This record gives sequence, C-alpha cells and structure tokens, in this order.
Amino acid sequence: MVEPAKFISVIGAGSATEEQLDRARQVGRLLAEAGFGVVTGGLGGVMAAACQGCCEAGGLTVGILPVTDRRAANPWCQVVIPTGLGQARNVLVVYAGLGAIAVAGGAGTLSEIGHALKTGRPVVGLGSWEIEGMAQAATPEEAVVKIQELVKG
Amino acid sequence: MVEPAKFISVIGAGSATEEQLDRARQVGRLLAEAGFGVVTGGLGGVMAAACQGCCEAGGLTVGILPVTDRRAANPWCQVVIPTGLGQARNVLVVYAGLGAIAVAGGAGTLSEIGHALKTGRPVVGLGSWEIEGMAQAATPEEAVVKIQELVKG
Amino acid sequence: MVEPAKFISVIGAGSATEEQLDRARQVGRLLAEAGFGVVTGGLGGVMAAACQGCCEAGGLTVGILPVTDRRAANPWCQVVIPTGLGQARNVLVVYAGLGAIAVAGGAGTLSEIGHALKTGRPVVGLGSWEIEGMAQAATPEEAVVKIQELVKG
Amino acid sequence: MVEPAKFISVIGAGSATEEQLDRARQVGRLLAEAGFGVVTGGLGGVMAAACQGCCEAGGLTVGILPVTDRRAANPWCQVVIPTGLGQARNVLVVYAGLGAIAVAGGAGTLSEIGHALKTGRPVVGLGSWEIEGMAQAATPEEAVVKIQELVKG
Repeated sequence: MVEPAKFISVIGAGSATEEQLDRARQVGRLLAEAGFGVVTGGLGGVMAAACQGCCEAGGLTVGILPVTDRRAANPWCQVVIPTGLGQARNVLVVYAGLGAIAVAGGAGTLSEIGHALKTGRPVVGLGSWEIEGMAQAATPEEAVVKIQELVKG
Repeated sequence: MVEPAKFISVIGAGSATEEQLDRARQVGRLLAEAGFGVVTGGLGGVMAAACQGCCEAGGLTVGILPVTDRRAANPWCQVVIPTGLGQARNVLVVYAGLGAIAVAGGAGTLSEIGHALKTGRPVVGLGSWEIEGMAQAATPEEAVVKIQELVKG
Repeated sequence: MVEPAKFISVIGAGSATEEQLDRARQVGRLLAEAGFGVVTGGLGGVMAAACQGCCEAGGLTVGILPVTDRRAANPWCQVVIPTGLGQARNVLVVYAGLGAIAVAGGAGTLSEIGHALKTGRPVVGLGSWEIEGMAQAATPEEAVVKIQELVKG
Repeated sequence: MVEPAKFISVIGAGSATEEQLDRARQVGRLLAEAGFGVVTGGLGGVMAAACQGCCEAGGLTVGILPVTDRRAANPWCQVVIPTGLGQARNVLVVYAGLGAIAVAGGAGTLSEIGHALKTGRPVVGLGSWEIEGMAQAATPEEAVVKIQELVKG
C-alpha cells in the first residue's frame, strides 16, 4: 500500500502579469515545501507558474487539460491528464485537491471557486475574487499557511 | 429541416423560499410567452418552478440531471437528460441556453454564472449573485426583457 | 405535471452508405410512429438520417453534440444540447434513451454499445457490431419491434 | 522543465479471478520495469492489481475514479483523480495513456476499447475482448512487449 499524494489546486488566470506569475510560483514552491503536490488546469499563466514553483521545490505536479492533446500541457506538469471535456474539466481540477488557492483569475476561476465551495472545499484568494465563503490572503506565505489550516480542519 | 428550439437557462437554488419559487415560475412563463424554452438542472426548487411556469404556458422544458436516474427529474421536464456527471453537468445547463437567468442560488449557481461568463453568454440576476459582467433585474418581467435584449445583441 | 418524452438512442456511423442512411431514416420514422422520440449524437450520417425520419413522422429529436457550437447540429434536431465534452458525450447519448438501436458504426458506436450494456440498456444491432448481450435485427421494422419489446421488459 | 511521465492504461474487470489478478499484477510490474506508469479507473480487481504491480516495481500509478470520494481508490494509487463523472470517466482513463492493455473485462472495458480505437490508441487484449483493430497477447510479457512496440510506432 502507498500513501496517495495530497494535492492543493492552484487556480487562476491563463494569462497573468509578472507579479501574479511570481506569486503563483511562490505558492507552488511553498506548497511543495509543506508536503503538498499541485494540481492545475495544465495550461499557461498562473497554472504554469504554480507547477514550476512546485516542481523546482521537488513537489509533484498534475495538469488536467481541457483538450485531448497532451502536448498542450505546460512544461512543468509531471502527470498530464488530457480530458477533452472543455470547461467541464474545471470541476476535476477542484476535486483533485483538498482545497484551492486562487491567484488572480477571471470567469473560469470563478466557476472553480463555485465548484469548490459547493463541495465544501476551502478556497483562499490571493488577489483574486472575493466571494463569501472564501478566505483571503495578502501574500503567498499567508495563502499557504491558511490553506494548510483549513484543509486540516 | 426544423428550426431548433431556443432555450434560456434558468439557474438557481435547489431549495428556495415561496417568493423565489413564485419568481422562478413567472420567469418560466414569461420565457415561454416570448418563444423560448427553458433548460434547467432538472431538480427541485427554482429549477422545478421555472419548468412549471414554462410548461404551463406551452413552452418546452429540458432538465439536465447530475445523476443517471431519470426519475430524479422534477415533474415539469418534457425532455430529461440524465448525465451521471455530477456537478460537471452545470456546464451543460449553461451551454444549452443562449443566455441565463439566475434566481437566488448558492455556490452551484455561482459556478454556472462563471461558466456562462467564460463563454460570453449573458446572465441576468434576479435576487442572485452580483458579479461583474452580469446584468441585474428587480422583477421577473425585467429579467426576461433584459435577457431577450442581451441574446439578440 | 407532464409526461416526459420517451427516447430511443440511435447510434451509428457519422458517414454512411445510402442504404445505411435509408435504414436509419426508417428506424427514425418507425420510432416516431411507435411514440418514441429519437436521441442521437447530433452530427451527420446515421445520426442525421434517424433524426430526419423521426422529425418527418412528427417525433421529437434531440442531438447531444460533442462540441460547444450548436450550429454543428444536423438540421433535424429540435433540441440541441452542445456539451463540449468530446467523446465523453457518447455516454450521455446512451443515458438519454431507454434503449439503443445501432445502425452500422465504428469504434465510437462500439463505445456506446459498451456504455449501454454496462447500464443494462437493451441494444439492437442493424448491420452493426455483433457483441454478446446485443439483440440483432435484419430490417428497420424488426429493430423497432425488438427494441420496443426489450424496453418494456 | 520536466519530462512528463508516460502512462499505459490498464483496463479490465472490477472483480476478477486470481489468475486474472495475477496477470494484471505482472502487467503492472513489467510496465514499471519498462519505464511506464500505470493509469487505471482506480477501483478494485484488475485495476488494483495492475496498480500494485506497478507500485511495487517503483512505477507511478494514477487512479481516475468515477466517484467524488477519493477514499474509493484502491490502496495502490499514488495519484487519485476523483471525477464524479460516473462512466464518462472511462474516456479519461483511455486518454491518459499512450495505449491500453485490457485484462479480462466486461461491458465497461468494451466501452474503453471503443474509446481507445476511436482515438487511434493501440490496445492489446490479454484474455479480454477480441475486437477488430486490437492486438492480442497470450502472456503479460507478450502484452507489454506488444504495447511498447505499438506506442513507439
């Protein structure tokens, strides 16, 4: 028997500013250092940056793609799950994590926040949506500390 | 050749107050009178009320269920699509409509609003979430007038 | 309350010979005359022909598309359900029917036969796969008689 | 940048004989020794045995569950992807692999074979269905040799 890896979903914008990317990379790194893998939607922007940060700190990364072509994955996904499900894959990104950290993000991220809250998963926002039921953090460090506390609960 | 039916998605709370149900019924009726069918997630609360209003005014109703058992559908669905997809069926409820009216609703409805905005579909809120990009209405009449204008655009 | 429509799934090749198309049209027509609607994957070939036959005989037709663009539907779908789910929509085509008739068809049809048998839905083949657990018919008439008996059972 | 793991899907019966389980374990072990990870539907029977064999030989295992509860996974899945998609998750099990080995299996496995052939993925049968387009093997060794050749092609 093996202990399955514990993942936090990192959700957010496919195209992001340098500052947002930097924060996503730090979130990924801190999650890896805290013993978590990172699961994302597998594409660019915040998704790629979080995977990179996690990978570089020795964590496991999973990308759950909306398309069928695995080559669409960003180069920091160790496990690529091509789904061909389009937007419906957002649900899977949320389900694969014990909780989620949202870094920036638009309407797709909003749908993921909705799916997470619907299933009782904690969500921490970092410069992202402010929705009732989410926690908010001002820094990557605070986001990772908060999500750890919340998934323990 | 046939002209495919035009649907508006009515999204909202599975359990709702009498006032919310009454508004959803009116939304369904007004949509039918305006020539639209109603598509919902096929369960109770706002979903059932909107289907009822639409049916009673001669409109076509579709319920896209999260489960595989068609008997879970509310008794006002003329077309029942059991999916077994769980929450991922929210995406399909949105896609089946030209636009959406949200009546009340919690986190599941929020996910649907996110999916709608992501694909450029107009969403009118009626006592529901207030999210940037949505239109807002104070009455069922206003909601139906607004969604008609927006889907024409 | 309304009685929900009863559907039979017609599954089969997206590109087909004239004889196969003719048989699919007859299957659609006979199902409509027997009081059933037809649900298909919404595209061309056998799917379009079955919808046409059903429509022309006054039956209700549903097309469950693999793509998000409703304009991909064949011109004989009264209800179009765009899913964006790719091949995963095959499951939904099967679930929406009480049973299935397979007219010709390749690997996609085989997946649908597998999904139908897995959920205990009867499948009648008409010049299609011969898989243990399916019934076989030599003519459209025989196929429609058999599926009616099997879904009653 | 990282090299994403290469997976072979092992599909087959959720309940199986000792001999079938033994063969699935060997398939898993041989795939790991050949440098592949194993992706399965994450439940018991052939799925669990293939994961066990792979894990014990140092390979990476992924279980793509039909349900939302990650605790439904067999104890040999290192990465658990709960989907809540029901049978539609079969498509994802196939997509996650470069090719598939089918060990025994019923209608669900048949649907997976259909999805694999539809997308041009090679499938090797080991005491499973015999469908045109599949390769057949008499032993776990032969199955793993064949799938390696076929995914190279």
